[in-house]
Amino acid sequence: MNFELTKKYLEELRTMIEQNQTAAIVEVVCSLHPADVADVLENLEPEDAKFIYSLLDEENAAEALMELDDDFRQEFLKLFSSTEIAEQVDQLDTDDAADLLGELPDEDMEDVISKMEDQEHASDIIDLLRYDEDSAGGLMQTEYIVAKENWEVTRCVVEMRRQAEDVEKVYSIYVVDDDDKLLGILSLRRLLFADPKTLIREIYMKENIHYVKTNDTQEDVAEIMEKYDLVAIPVVDLQGKLVGRITIDDVVDVIREEAEKDFQMASGISENVESSSSILKNTRSRLPWILIGLAGGVMSSQIIKGYEGSIALIPSLAFFIPLIASTAGNIGVQSSAIVVQGLASKDFQMRGIFTQVLKESIVGIIVGLICAGVIYGVGYFFTEELRLASTLAISLFIVVVFSAILGTFIPLALDRLKIDPALATGPFITTANDIIGLSIYFLVAYIIYF
Amino acid sequence: MNFELTKKYLEELRTMIEQNQTAAIVEVVCSLHPADVADVLENLEPEDAKFIYSLLDEENAAEALMELDDDFRQEFLKLFSSTEIAEQVDQLDTDDAADLLGELPDEDMEDVISKMEDQEHASDIIDLLRYDEDSAGGLMQTEYIVAKENWEVTRCVVEMRRQAEDVEKVYSIYVVDDDDKLLGILSLRRLLFADPKTLIREIYMKENIHYVKTNDTQEDVAEIMEKYDLVAIPVVDLQGKLVGRITIDDVVDVIREEAEKDFQMASGISENVESSSSILKNTRSRLPWILIGLAGGVMSSQIIKGYEGSIALIPSLAFFIPLIASTAGNIGVQSSAIVVQGLASKDFQMRGIFTQVLKESIVGIIVGLICAGVIYGVGYFFTEELRLASTLAISLFIVVVFSAILGTFIPLALDRLKIDPALATGPFITTANDIIGLSIYFLVAYIIYF
Repeated sequence: MNFELTKKYLEELRTMIEQNQTAAIVEVVCSLHPADVADVLENLEPEDAKFIYSLLDEENAAEALMELDDDFRQEFLKLFSSTEIAEQVDQLDTDDAADLLGELPDEDMEDVISKMEDQEHASDIIDLLRYDEDSAGGLMQTEYIVAKENWEVTRCVVEMRRQAEDVEKVYSIYVVDDDDKLLGILSLRRLLFADPKTLIREIYMKENIHYVKTNDTQEDVAEIMEKYDLVAIPVVDLQGKLVGRITIDDVVDVIREEAEKDFQMASGISENVESSSSILKNTRSRLPWILIGLAGGVMSSQIIKGYEGSIALIPSLAFFIPLIASTAGNIGVQSSAIVVQGLASKDFQMRGIFTQVLKESIVGIIVGLICAGVIYGVGYFFTEELRLASTLAISLFIVVVFSAILGTFIPLALDRLKIDPALATGPFITTANDIIGLSIYFLVAYIIYF
Repeated sequence: MNFELTKKYLEELRTMIEQNQTAAIVEVVCSLHPADVADVLENLEPEDAKFIYSLLDEENAAEALMELDDDFRQEFLKLFSSTEIAEQVDQLDTDDAADLLGELPDEDMEDVISKMEDQEHASDIIDLLRYDEDSAGGLMQTEYIVAKENWEVTRCVVEMRRQAEDVEKVYSIYVVDDDDKLLGILSLRRLLFADPKTLIREIYMKENIHYVKTNDTQEDVAEIMEKYDLVAIPVVDLQGKLVGRITIDDVVDVIREEAEKDFQMASGISENVESSSSILKNTRSRLPWILIGLAGGVMSSQIIKGYEGSIALIPSLAFFIPLIASTAGNIGVQSSAIVVQGLASKDFQMRGIFTQVLKESIVGIIVGLICAGVIYGVGYFFTEELRLASTLAISLFIVVVFSAILGTFIPLALDRLKIDPALATGPFITTANDIIGLSIYFLVAYIIYF
């Protein structure tokens, strides 16, 4: 029952397309889940993809469109007229429709909206377009099932039947008062088992109801849904009126995106790229940090130049430059990674920054002592110079402790300044610690030798 | 309606505990969601936490226990007798119960199981304990709603009512044949709207049914549920018999954990730590990569030592050691991060490894040319030595291209060897590229100068 896309499948499909075997194509493609259809389309030439797309039934087609990779979808939609796009948008849930329209250039967007058949649907979508796409309002859909508290169960079932035509997945029913203010939640199960004459007021859940406001960030939404294990959450406006709901599938995407963003930032990639992105985009996403790294390297070179005399007298000092720099970088990255994760999970709210810096200092001291001990032995073994071994051990200890503290402090400080702390991980901390580490190293060497 | 834990709340609670105001405590704590109760408990002394815990109603208490942080729960449970733990386990869903028991030492586990009241529940849990905790079997619960295909809708509703007592969240009903083989899915909505005399056979969904097998990995489960936007997925054994279901909340945890693991690996942390972990655990998780980095640093020192004569003659060569090493590291980390993400999203299945390595080489050449141009100018400006500027530019170009290829190739190769490719990101690639980068640098310098 689980579909797997193979090269063989694609080859057969291409042959069918060449030979125009419409019926055969319909059979092998149209029964697939939209997500699988999207996989198939992405692996065909745009024209072939468009041909297959035209054979899909309306709803399946629109959903497959939303399952396409963003980059591919933008290219693919260029093959469509405004009227054709409008037909797809008519089929989509409001949240997906708003996302799709948001990807179009402004003039195209207006054109598409004017060509939509269902103008009520269109006005819901226009409402959604007002919200920041990273906010709860930008994530929500206006399809949900709503019941008034003074309805009877029978009326509720009838109304639900009507409303449910628009709502793909019904998880629970939101209960509101006459002013549409959100009061609570009624589970489908409860409705199913209730006596037909009961009033909704008597059976809905009032306590521990979780909701978000339209202007909450998507991270807040993800956090609440994750914490309380919710599959859908109602969204209210600033007056507490129910205006939408967010389902877990969209939030799973948010969680995945956030994690990828942090990972990319930590790896020194400044723009969202995938392995399938264009060479230009790939290059552009990487240059900023590489150039900043180069600038750091030039600064390091000037620091070392300042100790040119020391190196001329004791050339073996130069041998250990990479060791000091890389250890400083490694320690800094570790510390900042732990802080960034702690901030993401709101671990620090109760404990405070000072405790964390103190703790990292202790870890730094332990790791520093171990490293110093190891390098003292190794340094002596390789160089047989006690003074060099001492220089290495002492400076490495200071560098490790210092890097651990800096790696902890910088992301915490950025967070205070409302800057994404993940910026501090990766190349930034590596570069900063390189420079500081080398300064410490040569200073210690200078003190010991001269 | 959303609860927020504040210092003030905790202080008031501590005062109530001191003064033994049981009724007041019940009022402020017992109406909270189990996830919030867990937050409260984690911020109290274990004895106080235990006191509050004893005031919670049974189900709420057991659920709060599962919401606790793993480390805290292990400490907390030490305050409980086997009988007390058994009482909690009796209240938990099978998947949570199995997780909890799995955390206990073997002899305690047997003791707890023998003291459980509901021995049928106990045997379900024992069944689950057989599965690897990272497999679908380890994630699933045995609470789900099942209907036979030859039942009428009325019978199904009656049976559901009986079964639903054990099932916290009913998303859909799994339809099986007389041998318990999974046939398809019936949505609650469909059941609600169906005529009472209809046979289940006529209304359940047979197409595009997704399921997993007990021995599928948790990554597979997450991928399928994410791809098809599922909130629950049935689990079958090797014969196709329905044995459990997995709900999205558990999968969200898996996705989060996986992302954290990749991020930690890329940051050179070898064990799962949080900012709240103990100093010992924190230190232990960081030492391996730091020591490997040190070993790399020592190897670098030996390479540089090999060119001691060159440095003695041209000391400014030493100035740019950090620049070469850090750029090599940065490029390598970027390339490997892109590959690791591509592998995670199965981007390469259709395109192949060669295409990716080729593409990275082109990106490497472009970035390398830009870096070489920049450093040629900067190098000349700072040193006014054409030969040094040329050495820097040429070696940096080669280093960048080489690091990009290596950073792409290593994770792909590890993946082929069934080793987690994330291992190749972070310190590993940085250390390897440091060594190779410096070798290239000094070799180029040697060729140009001598």
